[in-house]
Amino acid sequence: MLVVMYKNATEEQIERVLEIVEELGYKPIPNPGASRMVINITGDVDLLDSSRIEGLGGVMKVIRVTKPYRLADIEVKPDPTVIEVGDVEIGGSRRVIIAGPCSVESLDQIVEAALAVKECGGDILRGGAFKPRTSPYSFQGLGGEGLKHLKEARRRSGLPIITEAVDIESFELVEATADIVQIGARNMQNYSLLKRAGRSPKPVMLKRGISATLNELLAAAEYIMSEGNQEVILCERGIRTQNNHVRFTLDLASIPVLRGLTHLPLIIDPSHAAGKRDIVIPLARAGLAVGADGLIIEVHPRPDEALVDGAQSLTIEMFRSFMDSINEDQLLTDARSK
Amino acid sequence: MLVVMYKNATEEQIERVLEIVEELGYKPIPNPGASRMVINITGDVDLLDSSRIEGLGGVMKVIRVTKPYRLADIEVKPDPTVIEVGDVEIGGSRRVIIAGPCSVESLDQIVEAALAVKECGGDILRGGAFKPRTSPYSFQGLGGEGLKHLKEARRRSGLPIITEAVDIESFELVEATADIVQIGARNMQNYSLLKRAGRSPKPVMLKRGISATLNELLAAAEYIMSEGNQEVILCERGIRTQNNHVRFTLDLASIPVLRGLTHLPLIIDPSHAAGKRDIVIPLARAGLAVGADGLIIEVHPRPDEALVDGAQSLTIEMFRSFMDSINEDQLLTDARSK
Amino acid sequence: MLVVMYKNATEEQIERVLEIVEELGYKPIPNPGASRMVINITGDVDLLDSSRIEGLGGVMKVIRVTKPYRLADIEVKPDPTVIEVGDVEIGGSRRVIIAGPCSVESLDQIVEAALAVKECGGDILRGGAFKPRTSPYSFQGLGGEGLKHLKEARRRSGLPIITEAVDIESFELVEATADIVQIGARNMQNYSLLKRAGRSPKPVMLKRGISATLNELLAAAEYIMSEGNQEVILCERGIRTQNNHVRFTLDLASIPVLRGLTHLPLIIDPSHAAGKRDIVIPLARAGLAVGADGLIIEVHPRPDEALVDGAQSLTIEMFRSFMDSINEDQLLTDARSK
Amino acid sequence: MLVVMYKNATEEQIERVLEIVEELGYKPIPNPGASRMVINITGDVDLLDSSRIEGLGGVMKVIRVTKPYRLADIEVKPDPTVIEVGDVEIGGSRRVIIAGPCSVESLDQIVEAALAVKECGGDILRGGAFKPRTSPYSFQGLGGEGLKHLKEARRRSGLPIITEAVDIESFELVEATADIVQIGARNMQNYSLLKRAGRSPKPVMLKRGISATLNELLAAAEYIMSEGNQEVILCERGIRTQNNHVRFTLDLASIPVLRGLTHLPLIIDPSHAAGKRDIVIPLARAGLAVGADGLIIEVHPRPDEALVDGAQSLTIEMFRSFMDSINEDQLLTDARSK
Repeated sequence: MLVVMYKNATEEQIERVLEIVEELGYKPIPNPGASRMVINITGDVDLLDSSRIEGLGGVMKVIRVTKPYRLADIEVKPDPTVIEVGDVEIGGSRRVIIAGPCSVESLDQIVEAALAVKECGGDILRGGAFKPRTSPYSFQGLGGEGLKHLKEARRRSGLPIITEAVDIESFELVEATADIVQIGARNMQNYSLLKRAGRSPKPVMLKRGISATLNELLAAAEYIMSEGNQEVILCERGIRTQNNHVRFTLDLASIPVLRGLTHLPLIIDPSHAAGKRDIVIPLARAGLAVGADGLIIEVHPRPDEALVDGAQSLTIEMFRSFMDSINEDQLLTDARSK
Repeated sequence: MLVVMYKNATEEQIERVLEIVEELGYKPIPNPGASRMVINITGDVDLLDSSRIEGLGGVMKVIRVTKPYRLADIEVKPDPTVIEVGDVEIGGSRRVIIAGPCSVESLDQIVEAALAVKECGGDILRGGAFKPRTSPYSFQGLGGEGLKHLKEARRRSGLPIITEAVDIESFELVEATADIVQIGARNMQNYSLLKRAGRSPKPVMLKRGISATLNELLAAAEYIMSEGNQEVILCERGIRTQNNHVRFTLDLASIPVLRGLTHLPLIIDPSHAAGKRDIVIPLARAGLAVGADGLIIEVHPRPDEALVDGAQSLTIEMFRSFMDSINEDQLLTDARSK
Repeated sequence: MLVVMYKNATEEQIERVLEIVEELGYKPIPNPGASRMVINITGDVDLLDSSRIEGLGGVMKVIRVTKPYRLADIEVKPDPTVIEVGDVEIGGSRRVIIAGPCSVESLDQIVEAALAVKECGGDILRGGAFKPRTSPYSFQGLGGEGLKHLKEARRRSGLPIITEAVDIESFELVEATADIVQIGARNMQNYSLLKRAGRSPKPVMLKRGISATLNELLAAAEYIMSEGNQEVILCERGIRTQNNHVRFTLDLASIPVLRGLTHLPLIIDPSHAAGKRDIVIPLARAGLAVGADGLIIEVHPRPDEALVDGAQSLTIEMFRSFMDSINEDQLLTDARSK
Repeated sequence: MLVVMYKNATEEQIERVLEIVEELGYKPIPNPGASRMVINITGDVDLLDSSRIEGLGGVMKVIRVTKPYRLADIEVKPDPTVIEVGDVEIGGSRRVIIAGPCSVESLDQIVEAALAVKECGGDILRGGAFKPRTSPYSFQGLGGEGLKHLKEARRRSGLPIITEAVDIESFELVEATADIVQIGARNMQNYSLLKRAGRSPKPVMLKRGISATLNELLAAAEYIMSEGNQEVILCERGIRTQNNHVRFTLDLASIPVLRGLTHLPLIIDPSHAAGKRDIVIPLARAGLAVGADGLIIEVHPRPDEALVDGAQSLTIEMFRSFMDSINEDQLLTDARSK
């Protein structure tokens, strides 16, 4: 941790910083520069709250070099984490395609979707039983009924399933059914839920909050991992910016940057960012090109009738054509961009 | 709801939109313009998912005029909501000052803070017992012990208390102790927690998420209100932007804009946005000037020793001087800027 | 243009809006809804300043459907614009690679870079002679001397050149030398410069401002096109967001969205967004995958010695390996993602 | 400047950084920490391009402590700059109010506005003769004719005038007429224009770009100051964020932060940020409360008929009532919030 002093900081102010750092149990190393003093704090400063120094007289700013996470850190564990779900490996040499409708609407709908996803070459079925919705008056998902439909869809298609747990109440139900439990962007900093997920035997896919830094995303993963569960998949799904031409701005650069920070598998969700199906496929291809370990895509047998997010769901024909094209281009097995 | 078609939309595409709108039970009114068709959907469209129309062929965009909230809507209830907490009125003619440390650290600390806040003229005591922290390794608050200290601080100072509930588990404990339950920015879309708060007899202060729109903030309030609890206070605490000179960008314009949208009381938190105490007081004055119903400010007897956010806590001397100045300027009773 | 009234707007307020719209020479069509009035303004409203209506009593908001551009509009000219520069076609069936150093530093450096770019299969040479720099004390480019070096590099390599004009003073010099004139992100709304570019016989590459909407980008292109020059290439180079892990957030979704709005060719600049060379290649591949007509990439013979932006420049070896890989994958000729 | 190495950086990589820093003429001081090496670069590093170090092997990041400006730096010149314009002092103990229409539309309009501004107690008249507009088809101002009307308005009212120069061509004309030359947000990094302003005898009001950092704003001011003109006034007018409830998010915190960075006077423009007149007055009061040296506000005799930005213009009655209220509250002379 580095403490940068104002040019006109007094001797007393500098002394006070050195004293307090020592009182806190760390070793301060003063670096007098041409124009200002910079104090380097050494020792295990991960747990030092920089705010205690920032408020001292004469301090211009405090720069934290350390990270708010450890288990997720690639400097701690350089080998990529590979997560097995049935026959599917996430984070391995082959990319995975997760697909299905935004929400489970009926047994027929989810089974039809599952069979189509399977037939087109998808690896995992998605489908929401519990839906977090902005308005309390919107459709909130079929709940436990939806989970039963998902189970049947798995039985019929053979695909593992991923579905979202929106709170601790629903976590147990979801955990009992799903092969992967999803934690949504709105809940990225719902720490009780993260800790609960950390005590689950099931892998967890954690979506990045719409305004979260990568540090915050990795610290959220750390909440899960520090409770014991090391099987965390990170998902980039777009951030909220000044852009108004898409729902969210997909931050594709986060993938190569995260590769330098963490060993966890990385998935791209192009559907929520795009908001409109014509934009989904170009973003999906870009997600593979930028080096993600896979994609999670919304596909619906009849998007016109979808209860949630129909506009961004691919039709089955569009999904089939997309799968054919990426297989032909060997994008799922191409190691070049990973 | 308005459906804007592309200039080159075909007759069939327009017909398809009209049909689907009718199938959904609404009445479409076509407005042929000089260059393109605009279709107005009338009826009670609050619950219509615009996504169902957005994905149709020939549709350029769908514009929603309706709001995802009702009980919070000033068009529904034009009279300002005034919330009584002991002798204090929030949203009434006099502004309120909520002050205290970021977190309860010990009985002595919170009692000392409470007596100082009282003596300086503060109305309500703040202090966190449960602290949501980015890293799982940071200090997470004293929990139930902290609540006991808060109770004692209330007994000694006579001030009502506000403290945060971070999850459903802690809600009951917090609710039993606090006069106002705070829901933090990270939990603004934690819908289970919001619904639980909606069944509480205690007023709730809901902080705006760091990237939430005002529509989303009001829809979050609606989650609470639709469960029965109408006593919701909204709190602007800064949004995350490209700015790097403060922790968050305090969106003071949200106050007059919200006045035009809702009848709920509005509070400004200048401390978290500023991140540094020198910036807190100018923002606090601006918060009163822009018309908020009150402020929530961090004050700590010894900020250098604070376990959390010491840099942004005012000293008691600074707080006293601030209170003296705003009283002298009659800012708490000035109706002009409300 | 649509005028949405407040629910409680009075008859008089509605009448006043209708009157003013008629006075302005447009035809207002009232659409009474279940809860509020929406007024559709028809006629050629492109030039109507919506602000005149927004300020009227009872008006909740004004929604503009029309666009601030015409010549750039795909609804006006559906065929893609293809720009020929020597033997190179920009916007045609084959993608183009523009590469070279951020700034021209010496004759030797730019000739060495040009020969390497040519040999690796690049199509066009980039290199800045005039550099807009944040600080007045930073290196500002070699100016006219740099242009001479670029000319010599073109003679030796056979590659067409693109270089930036930072103001009207330098425009004539740049125009006399360059095959394509670049207008940088900082100058995207420098309207005098845009108009000057509109009177040039040379194609212009216009970079999107770091916080510009697509509407603003297209309106900036319109400033050039409305002066006569129809050869405008748009370049996405990243926007400034809350992200702090890259210099700018590359908005790759802008490419498919712009395809639906304009016929102009679209180029991606992955280098300025990444800020670090390890991130450049994944973003470059993503730029092709998302459907851009080409890339502009920084390559430097000795990045460690670069005077400007060395950290984001590829070495020649990296560039060669990138070119080999995208050729092998046929990404330059793949029509699939366009 | 601080160079933070990866934990696993090799001895060779560290050596290479030390060597290059020395080659560049600076002195590197290695700070071995518990987990990683941090290298402090001392000497006059203001002109060192950090990019040269960032791209080296083993470097995690480079942290720049130095500033891209000098003359604007409060650490260099601690005394506030006070600028005299006629009898008006900007940056002195009394706040100033600049008011007038967005654009000069006719002699009658600007004279009427000037007399009203004067009579209500305004200090300086604003009015645009050259208007930068997003679309080339929008009204662009009366140009030279507008300047003549402004001159006449000054003669009749006795108020000094401020008006915008949009390019070098118009600068000479504007400079000959105006008492203060405004440089707009779109031109904040139009360096040729800034340098021209730096050679002007007239004070310059520089508006912050809609996505500019404070460092960039101060570096832009430095472009003016380094050419000789020390009379620069900075203006905060709102930044573009994810917010969609106002046109721009007024960053009021920039005022106290800038006070700690620079000695230049600071003005708030609440009109462009608000976009709607009901929001202007609360933001104007907040601008004074947060400590600005003054305000620039749009006032129009008949906003309904304004050619530009009518919705955000105050009527004369609103402006009078605002001036009366701030005078009564002594906000213009109150030293407390400065």
